[in-house]
Amino acid sequence: MNNFSSGKEKLFVIKIGGNVIDEAETLHSFLKDFSAIQGKKILVHGGGKIATSIGNKLNIESKYIDGRRITDDKTIDLVTMVYGGLVNKQIVAKLQSLQCNAIGITGADANLLPAKKREVKEIDYGWVGDIETEKINPEMWKLLLENGLTPVAAPLTHDTNGHILNTNADTIASVIATSLSGSYQVSLVFCFDKKGVLLDVNNEASAISKLTFNDYLSLGKSDKLFAGILPKIDNAFDAINKGVDEVIIGNSTHLSSLINGTEGTKIC
Amino acid sequence: MNNFSSGKEKLFVIKIGGNVIDEAETLHSFLKDFSAIQGKKILVHGGGKIATSIGNKLNIESKYIDGRRITDDKTIDLVTMVYGGLVNKQIVAKLQSLQCNAIGITGADANLLPAKKREVKEIDYGWVGDIETEKINPEMWKLLLENGLTPVAAPLTHDTNGHILNTNADTIASVIATSLSGSYQVSLVFCFDKKGVLLDVNNEASAISKLTFNDYLSLGKSDKLFAGILPKIDNAFDAINKGVDEVIIGNSTHLSSLINGTEGTKIC
Repeated sequence: MNNFSSGKEKLFVIKIGGNVIDEAETLHSFLKDFSAIQGKKILVHGGGKIATSIGNKLNIESKYIDGRRITDDKTIDLVTMVYGGLVNKQIVAKLQSLQCNAIGITGADANLLPAKKREVKEIDYGWVGDIETEKINPEMWKLLLENGLTPVAAPLTHDTNGHILNTNADTIASVIATSLSGSYQVSLVFCFDKKGVLLDVNNEASAISKLTFNDYLSLGKSDKLFAGILPKIDNAFDAINKGVDEVIIGNSTHLSSLINGTEGTKIC
Repeated sequence: MNNFSSGKEKLFVIKIGGNVIDEAETLHSFLKDFSAIQGKKILVHGGGKIATSIGNKLNIESKYIDGRRITDDKTIDLVTMVYGGLVNKQIVAKLQSLQCNAIGITGADANLLPAKKREVKEIDYGWVGDIETEKINPEMWKLLLENGLTPVAAPLTHDTNGHILNTNADTIASVIATSLSGSYQVSLVFCFDKKGVLLDVNNEASAISKLTFNDYLSLGKSDKLFAGILPKIDNAFDAINKGVDEVIIGNSTHLSSLINGTEGTKIC
């Protein structure tokens, strides 16, 4: 969908992961770049290693199946504390010091991200939530954005029955971007530790500047893409198909270049 | 100040402490009563024993001087996690399930409670914040309230330079009530584990229904009041003097009776 002449105001939805959060210097530098972005913006953050390290001290074992954290009773409390409290509020306080009027949220706050506990089929993921996209109220997000606030979302949703749920941060960013694409011209930016989508995972110079769906299909067939990037790309195409203006994937240390289009991979 | 005929809309600012938070049943019952209150309301919560118990597991020692927690680097991270994350978000999720559109905040969020790190005089309290009342923006609080949201405040503020600060929940409730008394007819309710201000701390039947400043002075002189209640009463009179309509002190298990004036001690 081309919103070039839509007249809608621009909105950046930017996702960062553990690699940014785990290092104080990297995080500070990223937040400085983020706060310098003019206009409306939303930050979605993942968790980072800190949840695992605090979990270890509390004797809460990290369990994974297919790369996904299994969220038992103790683990949901752990991530609610660490993602929703420690990480989220430290980011908010830092953004405030950079003159960015941030407000930290989880999906439970103002019912911003209603979700459903994932059904138990072969795997019981525990307290993991799949967002009920159709129940999101864009007006509540707009209320915050239109009043000069910058939402900072932790990777947590809720089941509307009193339980916090663990939800993938990439998915949250994608869903927020999609839900607000009717109101804004949305750029969705996935930051990670590579320059973009790489044709050779060991060579940063192999980052491609653009990826169309046809490119993706043919690259996928030839097994040229690093498996870790595939869910990000799937999320990206899904967002584009649902009205997001552009999706950019690239390195968190070059946020301004990602945003002005001189670095990163643009998915279109 | 009598706002009886002011025509201002009513606002309840209700504070709960550890005794409510530490027991799931008590908390659920309180939140049910809280969510049943019609109209505008704000909940301020303290911490509870859970911070101490998680701190113990993490080998973070609780230090107190004069009953006040000394907040070193590790302790501010602990309370940011536990108060700002675990306790706050669990309350928000539960209120959402009770059809109360709660939004969890700390003072850093939307810069709702700017504060200053307490100066080191005889005691170094560490990361403890004294709220800069004159810098509070009531419009931001009103934005939330006027759009059907119920703020749930953790006992945390920020120094506007990037640091979260630990701040007494009674003080936060008092300051919020005061700051919004120009816009609303504010009832400030301090919930604790006694029926109200007791003349005999071991006898619940000795709760007094009303306490004027003159009563307080004469009771204070005769040492009849339990020392633990004195800061609450001081906070209460301070709030009244600054425009809050009424302050009620009483048991969290009887919230509806506190609000309709049939139980608790009314400070005036």
